[in-house]
Amino acid sequence: MKLYTYFRSSAAYRVRIALNLKELQYDAIPVHLLRDGGEQLQAQYTAINPSGLVPAFQDDYITLTQSMAILEYLDDEYPKVPLMPKDASGRARVRELAQIIACDIHPVNNLRVLRYLTDTLGLSEAVKTEWYRHWLTDGLEVLEKHLDRDPSAGPLCHGHTPTIADCCLVPQVYNAQRHGIDLAPYPNIRRINAACIEMPGFVAAHPANQPDAE
Amino acid sequence: MKLYTYFRSSAAYRVRIALNLKELQYDAIPVHLLRDGGEQLQAQYTAINPSGLVPAFQDDYITLTQSMAILEYLDDEYPKVPLMPKDASGRARVRELAQIIACDIHPVNNLRVLRYLTDTLGLSEAVKTEWYRHWLTDGLEVLEKHLDRDPSAGPLCHGHTPTIADCCLVPQVYNAQRHGIDLAPYPNIRRINAACIEMPGFVAAHPANQPDAE
Repeated sequence: MKLYTYFRSSAAYRVRIALNLKELQYDAIPVHLLRDGGEQLQAQYTAINPSGLVPAFQDDYITLTQSMAILEYLDDEYPKVPLMPKDASGRARVRELAQIIACDIHPVNNLRVLRYLTDTLGLSEAVKTEWYRHWLTDGLEVLEKHLDRDPSAGPLCHGHTPTIADCCLVPQVYNAQRHGIDLAPYPNIRRINAACIEMPGFVAAHPANQPDAE
Repeated sequence: MKLYTYFRSSAAYRVRIALNLKELQYDAIPVHLLRDGGEQLQAQYTAINPSGLVPAFQDDYITLTQSMAILEYLDDEYPKVPLMPKDASGRARVRELAQIIACDIHPVNNLRVLRYLTDTLGLSEAVKTEWYRHWLTDGLEVLEKHLDRDPSAGPLCHGHTPTIADCCLVPQVYNAQRHGIDLAPYPNIRRINAACIEMPGFVAAHPANQPDAE
């Protein structure tokens, strides 16, 4: 299987974590988001992923875009190391946590949106930085409240073993730290992140440990 | 079961379609997004959904936010009228189509983001309108390419029976039409939408047919 990835893409980072946790071998094909106007926007890549977004994933007979669909596919097709709870309410809860990140935080702060603010609207770097901080801290606050109120939260987002919620949380925390966001108000998020990043599958997926890391 | 809904919320509209297709009875609890500074931001509602976003859903023993998690929960827990294919690659494809809408289009054009543009950044209505059009047409183009290239697309997004992808497509098309977006460049999307909106479950879920419609 092949993963079209960029070391700092948090959506690609989610999928790398899942592939590693499931001990699946894959070829990493780097797509440099900042080189030559963005390799993700060039015809060679948009023929694979028309959205011009990273990641894209190819298994024997299927090409997939959308990181959350890829995570669910991996869990469906390679169930040996499950990343979803067995019960419907547990699965719902894990999807809810993952989607707080994947729907409410990440898309609004994606590279293409930030570029629209500065390049198309001509807004300042300071406005862009505040935009980023606003949506990120808003989303982290929501996530923290969910983790705080639900007894199913354990050492990880849901109990003791990693789920797709953890696959989303760790890259989002990485992004937050890279942007200098204070994580003190989110003790559950910090605790879960600290537990995850020690695990070998998460370590190997870290941006700094990718072949295209700079 | 209870659905906290607003007639024009496309995320709530998705869930209404699924509930209807599955012939599940539910109590619709209106949350008016524009009244009194937004009922979704008041403590009574944020105690249920900390994000202050619609919808929220309550079944006997579970409270859920995030429309995609709710759709999957309904399909997990009430499988009689399935909204997902039986095969892993079909499920992946349906999730991919749904998430093109739920992750790449809808969050960037959500009410709270549009308000940030005008109220916080002081941008004009014209800039807001162009922002909306930009992300919507970008996403519809991607969706159209996927529907066009994949032989699994049938009269509906995936074959002949509605899936969660159709639950997402129809509300997004409704939004596009409400904003005067020309859908001529998207024949597959128009065709699928036309087939869906004739079906009773979709009709009953339409914004105009809600108790809180204005």
